[in-house]
Amino acid sequence: MRATLIYGAGDVRVETVPDPKLVEPTDAVVRVVRSCICGSDLWPYGSMPAQEQGRRIGHEFLGIVEETGADVTSVRRGDLVVAPFLYSDNTCEFCQEGLQTSCLHGGGWGANGVDGGQGEIVRVPQADGTLVQLPHTEDDELLASMLTLSDVFSTGHHAAVTAGVAKGKTVTVIGDGAVGLSAVLAAHRLGAERIVLMGRHEKRTELGREFGATDVVAERGEEGIALVRELTGGRGTHTVLECVGTKPAFEMGLGVVRAGGALSRVGVPQYAEGPIGRPVFTGNITITGGVAPARQYIPELLPDVLEGRYQPGRVFDRTIGLSEVPAGYRAMADREALKVLVKP
Amino acid sequence: MRATLIYGAGDVRVETVPDPKLVEPTDAVVRVVRSCICGSDLWPYGSMPAQEQGRRIGHEFLGIVEETGADVTSVRRGDLVVAPFLYSDNTCEFCQEGLQTSCLHGGGWGANGVDGGQGEIVRVPQADGTLVQLPHTEDDELLASMLTLSDVFSTGHHAAVTAGVAKGKTVTVIGDGAVGLSAVLAAHRLGAERIVLMGRHEKRTELGREFGATDVVAERGEEGIALVRELTGGRGTHTVLECVGTKPAFEMGLGVVRAGGALSRVGVPQYAEGPIGRPVFTGNITITGGVAPARQYIPELLPDVLEGRYQPGRVFDRTIGLSEVPAGYRAMADREALKVLVKP
Repeated sequence: MRATLIYGAGDVRVETVPDPKLVEPTDAVVRVVRSCICGSDLWPYGSMPAQEQGRRIGHEFLGIVEETGADVTSVRRGDLVVAPFLYSDNTCEFCQEGLQTSCLHGGGWGANGVDGGQGEIVRVPQADGTLVQLPHTEDDELLASMLTLSDVFSTGHHAAVTAGVAKGKTVTVIGDGAVGLSAVLAAHRLGAERIVLMGRHEKRTELGREFGATDVVAERGEEGIALVRELTGGRGTHTVLECVGTKPAFEMGLGVVRAGGALSRVGVPQYAEGPIGRPVFTGNITITGGVAPARQYIPELLPDVLEGRYQPGRVFDRTIGLSEVPAGYRAMADREALKVLVKP
Repeated sequence: MRATLIYGAGDVRVETVPDPKLVEPTDAVVRVVRSCICGSDLWPYGSMPAQEQGRRIGHEFLGIVEETGADVTSVRRGDLVVAPFLYSDNTCEFCQEGLQTSCLHGGGWGANGVDGGQGEIVRVPQADGTLVQLPHTEDDELLASMLTLSDVFSTGHHAAVTAGVAKGKTVTVIGDGAVGLSAVLAAHRLGAERIVLMGRHEKRTELGREFGATDVVAERGEEGIALVRELTGGRGTHTVLECVGTKPAFEMGLGVVRAGGALSRVGVPQYAEGPIGRPVFTGNITITGGVAPARQYIPELLPDVLEGRYQPGRVFDRTIGLSEVPAGYRAMADREALKVLVKP
């Protein structure tokens, strides 16, 4: 089969690799119907040291089950299924608490002999715990929206849930990438009263408004902080959803969070130390979030997607074939594309 | 009247100062019956640059109301009252949310013309919002326990509440000072299943055991982390109550917190930046806590103290008169005394 490998910064290739086969009785083999490129794939695409052996990449996909191991009972050949961006057994003590990202028998795609999502076929470990069945459909928009449950919409939802977004709460979303826009949608879904989107890419912030943003602030740093404070009577917002991952984004988040409020991070932090001294302490600011247990959220979010109440798939603004994946990375890195859908 | 002033590191003096008088119609004047020295007073005692003008110090007291302003309705002359370690109107939007530490009309003792708690008499701004009435008593132990509501027991409770301590949860308390021991007591009160106290001062950890600690770990750093992990099947505890305020204590807290868990800080951070990068993110660790809204907690905690179910006043192991306050600071700084009670 063909699959995507990354060899270093700016060097993504689609190559022929061995066809996946069942290894464990708990495995399934899934033929990918839709995959995509994640903002987090852009971190290695931007900075990974060049290496001779490429590594498989991609962690968001839905597809058709082709084969199942002897122990798999919840899905079978022919089922349409979505996989969260980490696999998990869904039975260990962490999974039972809804933290499948810390599953004792879980792991990531594209490593340790497990295929990446940006390919034709994927061997899925812990298939019973990992895969969630979807209704069959040929509807491109519905497929796209269902695919976002794998990561981007679930991640936006995680930001909103961990920050405590609820009816009557005010929210600042930092970042107008696909996760930021998904966080806007998730905050709207949870009943936020006011959603300030901090982003400067007009086409994206426009979609943010359609997703529920009540205000858009294009300015950054001190200027951006001052504007959000102005919008909120000087107080800041109850919750901040930090969807970028850089230190300046985190610092801006602290600048706009209301005393007693929470800043949730879902952008992978690109910094080792952050400013959590006296002002955070005095303001009783909670710092929360992390890697989203998408598997936990899919059953809750799926009905709203199936019934069309929410269309998170609108974050995809380009669709390509597998051979175009390298160009897809370039387009996302250059911010020409918001999020790229892949039809292998 | 006589009151305590600090002039710099190691330089605390008891001097004659003007008698407090009502200034605002919302003020009360309270004659101090019990006061005490706080672990946080030891930070300026350890490092404050010497200055010619001393500043008033002390922020924990209970006493008898001597006079009230025209607008004060909730307390009157002769009432025994306790003051939280910050004053607040208890009506503003933050106070209504239980965050009296961010009161729009609040402030601290010993600054801006407001007396410190380590003195004979205190002018109390926002008396209706600040003071909580207590039953009259001459019982030394009960007075000591009621005094802890002003700060130390409320602060331990804040750590436990913000970290999410509840029935069935495991807890690590970092620090065997008066706040750490109060946090043990608060965690026990909230139904924690297991409470690991990290501290090396045996007399203190012994009291910690009486307060509800199920395990004591004297080791620090990597060694201490390994021992707590060993006690918890390698997982760490659901919650960590960091009651010291140093960076090594915070780092140790991160080392013993379970994935998906929370580290609450109630020791004033003595660092500006902390290690909140990938491991915190990957583990979905929440960092919470801050300055405790004692005023919010007093009504909840008071009945357990009055009815003798909890005796947080046991953290006091020395009682002195006002003139001995400088010696009291020395004893606490030298860790000869755990917490010093002052009878002016």
